[in-house]
Amino acid sequence: MSEVPKHRDTPGGEAEGVARIGLLGRGTVGGAFAELVADSGQAIAAASGRQAEITGVLRRSEGDFDQILRASDIVVELIGGTDPAREYVTRALQAGKHVVTANKQLVAQHGEELFAAARASGVQLRFEAAVAGVVPVIRVIQESLAATEITKVFGIVNGTTNFILTEMATTGAPYADVLARAQELGYAEADPTADVGGADAAAKMAILARLAFHSPVSLDDVSYEGITEIQPDDLAYAKELGLSLKLLGVAELREGGLSVRVFPCFLYSGHPLAPIGGPFNAVMVEAPAITEVTMSGPGAGGVQTATAVLGDVVSILAGKAPVHETRRELEIIRDVSSSFYLHMEVADRPGVLAQIADVLGRNEISVLSLAQRGLGDDARLVMVLHECSESSFYAALDELGRLEFLRSAPRAIRVIEEEFA
Amino acid sequence: MSEVPKHRDTPGGEAEGVARIGLLGRGTVGGAFAELVADSGQAIAAASGRQAEITGVLRRSEGDFDQILRASDIVVELIGGTDPAREYVTRALQAGKHVVTANKQLVAQHGEELFAAARASGVQLRFEAAVAGVVPVIRVIQESLAATEITKVFGIVNGTTNFILTEMATTGAPYADVLARAQELGYAEADPTADVGGADAAAKMAILARLAFHSPVSLDDVSYEGITEIQPDDLAYAKELGLSLKLLGVAELREGGLSVRVFPCFLYSGHPLAPIGGPFNAVMVEAPAITEVTMSGPGAGGVQTATAVLGDVVSILAGKAPVHETRRELEIIRDVSSSFYLHMEVADRPGVLAQIADVLGRNEISVLSLAQRGLGDDARLVMVLHECSESSFYAALDELGRLEFLRSAPRAIRVIEEEFA
Repeated sequence: MSEVPKHRDTPGGEAEGVARIGLLGRGTVGGAFAELVADSGQAIAAASGRQAEITGVLRRSEGDFDQILRASDIVVELIGGTDPAREYVTRALQAGKHVVTANKQLVAQHGEELFAAARASGVQLRFEAAVAGVVPVIRVIQESLAATEITKVFGIVNGTTNFILTEMATTGAPYADVLARAQELGYAEADPTADVGGADAAAKMAILARLAFHSPVSLDDVSYEGITEIQPDDLAYAKELGLSLKLLGVAELREGGLSVRVFPCFLYSGHPLAPIGGPFNAVMVEAPAITEVTMSGPGAGGVQTATAVLGDVVSILAGKAPVHETRRELEIIRDVSSSFYLHMEVADRPGVLAQIADVLGRNEISVLSLAQRGLGDDARLVMVLHECSESSFYAALDELGRLEFLRSAPRAIRVIEEEFA
Repeated sequence: MSEVPKHRDTPGGEAEGVARIGLLGRGTVGGAFAELVADSGQAIAAASGRQAEITGVLRRSEGDFDQILRASDIVVELIGGTDPAREYVTRALQAGKHVVTANKQLVAQHGEELFAAARASGVQLRFEAAVAGVVPVIRVIQESLAATEITKVFGIVNGTTNFILTEMATTGAPYADVLARAQELGYAEADPTADVGGADAAAKMAILARLAFHSPVSLDDVSYEGITEIQPDDLAYAKELGLSLKLLGVAELREGGLSVRVFPCFLYSGHPLAPIGGPFNAVMVEAPAITEVTMSGPGAGGVQTATAVLGDVVSILAGKAPVHETRRELEIIRDVSSSFYLHMEVADRPGVLAQIADVLGRNEISVLSLAQRGLGDDARLVMVLHECSESSFYAALDELGRLEFLRSAPRAIRVIEEEFA
């Protein structure tokens, strides 16, 4: 008879011994985590059969990593960035310690090497908090859907940009003003580049793609755009058309390969992600066997992120270990099909529309809807195009941009036009 | 140094041995599960480090339970109902076999006894598919949030009623017609009583409350109402007011006790559950540390439910075991505060409104909004009331029902008026 692992009965949640946690970093999340561990002693013991205690804390100004490492069973890395986090996590795994981290850059850039180190030592590396905060997308992909063939994972994985886009749509204010407000409220950092430029979302999508498709995904495999070029009048037109604008991350199987992208994008109002507003995150997972599952919640925040970290710690205490082996090597697909919104300001004279239509036609692109508005001697053309290959679209956009009657550079934003129940 | 469990490195997902699954019941879900296991061999091995095989199937007409039990490591119960499922599951747990079930009635009615049997044998009992199909609410509550103090779990946990309410709102058709259509489409059973009367949702909420609050909850502790009394004009008024109607299950901590209820209820349009349409399910979990997490997806369907069962099987193969011990005994609270929609048809003559206002005032109930419409000699009054204790409201409703100018029994439906970001 084969051995399926069993757990011991531990009446009253009695601990087998105190699990010692070494905490690296004690900023907002680290502080919230330390408080949670102190306040949740009974709950941790009841849930895992073990008690947990923070037995060492490494801050910039205090603590010795080697000493903390020796005195820990689990290392919780909340420093952020890849250096020195990468070294600390690697050494902890090599020393046979379980590791929990909230560090998306570390996992997105050095995941394979860390997964291999964890496998080699037979320990766990968990990182729920690295993507979408307390929204349990990593656990659901890795555990609930571990043996399910996932075809697509997509969603809103950056709260800063979702806050900015929601505010722009609600108030009509321009990007720069709303960014300044987001910084005042603490929803955007002093240097917002990684968030608003799409790099943060790209790192999270690299992680989700890796886990969902069991194929290596590096950060360079992710094409990304941010929201810095979005104009208030794009949002105004969108409102009229019943569209809402989101910065979307999409990882999907395409023709036997894998496409991972981040881009600002219009959603029709029936879409499950359309109502996700403010700093919230939401992720949808699609698979033939499940249709789709949607998860949403706060994407950041000290205590929320710390709660996700604690969930991972409890799972380690309880004993389960995802192994993160790649199962295949999918080709990265970059030229996918998309539907686009196109915004042009042109001279208002005969033949202009014909020339535009000619460019689109030669590139095999057809128009779904079109609105034209006069602006004195000029005119504004806003159209939604049927789905076409992105390479065709960008070839057409390049041609359009060189037409002499154009008053400013054309603006293009993707549109998701799928229907939802 | 304390022992935190580690897993063995199993290169290439090589199995330690084949796990033998005994399948009880081979209806829609059982058939889909057998197919998934046959088709997902590689994925199961990669995700769990083990291979799995169905080595025995019990149908009404074939198979011997004792023989299947002896030849299984895991028993998957998909018979439904409590008899003989209760006996089979109990005997499997006592024999040291892990059990996965999709049987909500079994877990809601006999959960404590089964949890105790699992703990005594040191085996796992998993039942993700018993609530909200493939929506991973049980795993998230038990694992991601295992050490988090949850304050409220609520949502749409019955797809049949959500389909009916969505159709009634969209088409304006009466309940009986839409029910017939739901039966044709396979969204409602020939005898729909358990679904439309609220008992199915009550069983699911008993399970969720037990897991979220770690306190015993029996099916009798759940107050429930169904949707059979809903009239098309309630939905028409609701649409005008920006409300949508859902059958909601709510389990929440109230004044140191626990309230678990199922009732039809209006939601304002900003509510995250308002857009959940058709046969979908959605559950929200609230806790101070996480704000809220929302999960949604198909609540039923053969392959969807089978996928949830497979997720549990893979988790058992990988080794983790929730222990389901109660941590406290909360008092069950029945008289909670609610806001109500109230619909009355009355004689259209002076003094009527004053008498109604007097009844409400004496019961300390105030009116949030009111609409009156003439109907010849009669008038229709529709109002939304501010939150008040349900006992006050039902006392007032009883008085109102006895007023001589009333043309038909007053109708009341709860309203959720919380604001959401």
